[in-house]
Amino acid sequence: MELHILDHRLKIASVPRDSLHSCTHGVFKLAFLAEKTRCKFFSFTQTPEDYTLIVDEEGLKEFPASERLTVADATWAALNVASGGGHSPAAASAVGVTKIAKSVIAPLADHNVSVFMLSTYQTDFILVRERDLPTVVRTLSAEFIFVVAVDFLVLTYFSDITSPARRPIIHPLACPLNRFCITSLDPATLPSVATLLMDIMFYSDGFPNNLLFTSSSNEMWKMVRIGGQPLGFDECGIVAQISEPLASGDILAYYISTYKFDHALVPEEEIDNAVSLLTFRPELSR
Amino acid sequence: MELHILDHRLKIASVPRDSLHSCTHGVFKLAFLAEKTRCKFFSFTQTPEDYTLIVDEEGLKEFPASERLTVADATWAALNVASGGGHSPAAASAVGVTKIAKSVIAPLADHNVSVFMLSTYQTDFILVRERDLPTVVRTLSAEFIFVVAVDFLVLTYFSDITSPARRPIIHPLACPLNRFCITSLDPATLPSVATLLMDIMFYSDGFPNNLLFTSSSNEMWKMVRIGGQPLGFDECGIVAQISEPLASGDILAYYISTYKFDHALVPEEEIDNAVSLLTFRPELSR
Repeated sequence: MELHILDHRLKIASVPRDSLHSCTHGVFKLAFLAEKTRCKFFSFTQTPEDYTLIVDEEGLKEFPASERLTVADATWAALNVASGGGHSPAAASAVGVTKIAKSVIAPLADHNVSVFMLSTYQTDFILVRERDLPTVVRTLSAEFIFVVAVDFLVLTYFSDITSPARRPIIHPLACPLNRFCITSLDPATLPSVATLLMDIMFYSDGFPNNLLFTSSSNEMWKMVRIGGQPLGFDECGIVAQISEPLASGDILAYYISTYKFDHALVPEEEIDNAVSLLTFRPELSR
Repeated sequence: MELHILDHRLKIASVPRDSLHSCTHGVFKLAFLAEKTRCKFFSFTQTPEDYTLIVDEEGLKEFPASERLTVADATWAALNVASGGGHSPAAASAVGVTKIAKSVIAPLADHNVSVFMLSTYQTDFILVRERDLPTVVRTLSAEFIFVVAVDFLVLTYFSDITSPARRPIIHPLACPLNRFCITSLDPATLPSVATLLMDIMFYSDGFPNNLLFTSSSNEMWKMVRIGGQPLGFDECGIVAQISEPLASGDILAYYISTYKFDHALVPEEEIDNAVSLLTFRPELSR
């Protein structure tokens, strides 16, 4: 498993649910006409609370007129977890926050580095503030060795780590009834589904037609939402609180942070197991 | 030839060239996801001066947040010129403002009815203010007889009309160097070209790729732009001033009004002929 520090300077922004129209022009361009922008990183997440946009500085330039866009102050760097095999389908099955709970998430939490997780079908992105990068490298270099590559810093994972003390979960959890499908789309096929995606992203409350989006396997996922009040960006250890118990139960999990809350996705047949692991209070069993 | 009074209540609006982003959300929905709106009439015209939108009252509801949208006060009705054969390709060749210059345009001008012309590949729309409809029906009923149809009023053309006295052209004319292609798209194929059209409509100055838009024939068109200062909506006879000389020369012409100017399109091999007809001053030859 490799950990890359990607060459992006990312901004995290939020758009109110009732104000997406003010950003439609920019979002459409970034989502469907990427070749017309210099943006190299674009993420769009809809939750009941808001729309979360993650873009690099070039992407942010596409929203000159969006006074409804709230952009967090910090600039973030992206750590990219990729298996040795790169992004092959085989490697894809090896991702998920569970796989990096002990090797990456826990050490960063131990050193008070706030992380913003963004799992995708192919890989996981761990966003950390640029100003924390020295700490990140110092922290992880205890477990990794440096290999300088052409266009990014490659940290090659070596040894496993002994599990730290159990972190108490300090934020309320919620399990929506929704079932989720985690899937991936070949960019080359994007034009053929553009109007459907436009419909889903901008003009529909639900998911009117997911026939195009059935994952290769038929696995469905359930969500654990973390946070009652918006979490903010300063608190450390939230991802670790969730990912470590799931890792201890060997439950594969995707983890998606948004501007206001965090979201862990686990295979639906594991949701009960995951909830019991997350709600288990060791101090009560002493 | 038939003239239909369509059941639309239309509004004519203008968006500044630098403010399209404020209307992108609504325009995309009307252009690419028509089934999600109750709008039955939508027209989008880009000129160097502005974007002109023509929508019915339902369509206008898609622009709640577009304070940059300037909507003309009047509500317009649409007269639709269709050949007997309806909208078959054969019939399409029979449209163009030239065909209705004497039978529709001239009589309306004679009775001081201001018209807003909108030619399309398939047919021509003559927009008149709702308040002028009684005058329109009275005027044209001298040359047409009424046939009441199921969902619209059909006026079936009977006799030709003697040409009225030559109307002097009172607005400056201009001939851009551009060559234009007048074409048509099967709505069923719209999704397959949505991203290309999005690119053309919103993110490109020019026409980056017109391979998809070559007309069945290879005929190209040249434009005569009418108006130095914005024409406004009150003046009568402008379309007549242009269409009658072209009709006298039997030059097929499409005519497109926008919020600020009028535009006549003639086959490029006819442009010199058209210009000489339009700039001929009978009073000078007396």
